[in-house]
Amino acid sequence: MDVPEIAADALAALNAEYEAMPPVAAMRIRAVAFDGERLRLLAPLANNVNDKGCAFGGSLASIMTLAGWGLAVLELRVAGLAAEVYVADSQIRYLAPLYDELRAEAGLVADQDWPAILQCLRQRGRARLNVHAQVNDAGGRAVATLEARFALIAPAGD
Amino acid sequence: MDVPEIAADALAALNAEYEAMPPVAAMRIRAVAFDGERLRLLAPLANNVNDKGCAFGGSLASIMTLAGWGLAVLELRVAGLAAEVYVADSQIRYLAPLYDELRAEAGLVADQDWPAILQCLRQRGRARLNVHAQVNDAGGRAVATLEARFALIAPAGD
Repeated sequence: MDVPEIAADALAALNAEYEAMPPVAAMRIRAVAFDGERLRLLAPLANNVNDKGCAFGGSLASIMTLAGWGLAVLELRVAGLAAEVYVADSQIRYLAPLYDELRAEAGLVADQDWPAILQCLRQRGRARLNVHAQVNDAGGRAVATLEARFALIAPAGD
Repeated sequence: MDVPEIAADALAALNAEYEAMPPVAAMRIRAVAFDGERLRLLAPLANNVNDKGCAFGGSLASIMTLAGWGLAVLELRVAGLAAEVYVADSQIRYLAPLYDELRAEAGLVADQDWPAILQCLRQRGRARLNVHAQVNDAGGRAVATLEARFALIAPAGD
């Protein structure tokens, strides 16, 4: 699995999917890096600002949810598997105001691994995964965190 | 406290605040009703659609968070109190896809009441509140729910 090679095309395809969703296009959320385990997204503050001049909570929720969703989409693409990716639930903590660009990063929670998740999807046509995502400030400190469960559902008949 | 009388002006002011936030303006989220206890918001599907043609999870998170935030803003306005309203954390469940307008509603969770929250704010300059919000489909069935904690913080020196 040559992740760096596949990553550029997969990131471009993911960004086309983000761009096709009107609320995501309005927030100018885009994927910038994927190393096979973690996905990084960026969005400008200007499109995501609230009444206090800092990042809107709904934009923080959106970029973290999209980081988890996009991570699953990329892992499926790298593995050559087809499945829809659905968010099932999430817990979000807002830790500090952010007066800067939104930098989000998502990965699996510590007790999960992609080979087991994708094996479950191949065998049962469905799988669950738990993602941790966070938005960091320019100094690398978390300003918001998300833990979310996603469901992968293979097309009927696959 | 004449809620119906104050409600029209307060809703218009709240909508001006929503409209001033670029991501909220892009989602065309607006307040449509407030009865003193519960706030209702609406948003068109077209501005909030995902890759599957149904409501984007980040838009559902945004409208429910804004319903809770707006509820607190209106209760403060009706009570004649000044305070900033911050979301602290939230738990969201995505129950079913929504292929229709986003209809959100927020109120306090059952064990809380506004007189006690506002009394706490007056005495200590800070208060916490727990909000329940949900988005319903056209038949009144919940497609997403949120439980969130908000903080009210009075301006220094008040």
